[in-house]
Amino acid sequence: MSDCIFCKIVAGELPSNTVFENDEVLAFHDIRPQAPVHVLIIPKRHIPSAHALTAEDAAVLGEIHQAARQIAEQLGVAEQGYRLVTNVGFHGQQTVPHLHYHLLGGRQLQWPPG
Amino acid sequence: MSDCIFCKIVAGELPSNTVFENDEVLAFHDIRPQAPVHVLIIPKRHIPSAHALTAEDAAVLGEIHQAARQIAEQLGVAEQGYRLVTNVGFHGQQTVPHLHYHLLGGRQLQWPPG
Repeated sequence: MSDCIFCKIVAGELPSNTVFENDEVLAFHDIRPQAPVHVLIIPKRHIPSAHALTAEDAAVLGEIHQAARQIAEQLGVAEQGYRLVTNVGFHGQQTVPHLHYHLLGGRQLQWPPG
Repeated sequence: MSDCIFCKIVAGELPSNTVFENDEVLAFHDIRPQAPVHVLIIPKRHIPSAHALTAEDAAVLGEIHQAARQIAEQLGVAEQGYRLVTNVGFHGQQTVPHLHYHLLGGRQLQWPPG
């Protein structure tokens, strides 16, 4: 999608502070971090949101979660724990219409999750 | 796991207010709802957390997300939006060591997500 900022990051047209990359997935630090560790994990392919996932997208969900596990280890939050969050639409406060999982850790996360 | 309350719910040994079920996945209303819609989506198979997922678990992640989409439609939050959250460990406030996704909707969710 030519007007999607995450697609532009994937294409290298916008900068990001990358923490993980493979053929399917890119992960980078959130520019407005809400915790000491706050990383966004996205599929390189444009998928508008979790609500747009089809049964054929299981593999990329697997890749995203394997990336999360690896990033949590890499950034030292695996032992204390972390939270994975994905927002859909207005009530979810989804700000970029390209599927992304927030990985937050490095502090005690509160309940409710927003 | 004989001492896991979600495995007991799957086995029918503990009650739950079911909203969705198929061969792989069960979903039920959270007993301490944090939003007008607050459903837990779990794999029937015992997986301790998102951090315990392996590359072989992509299919069940696909099932969980397809269930989320269907539940969001069924409970009328798909159009306004919703949030999916999974907690890992202490900092994430994971309370039951059986992988579960919270689906929250029906109100404006706040940021940060805890």
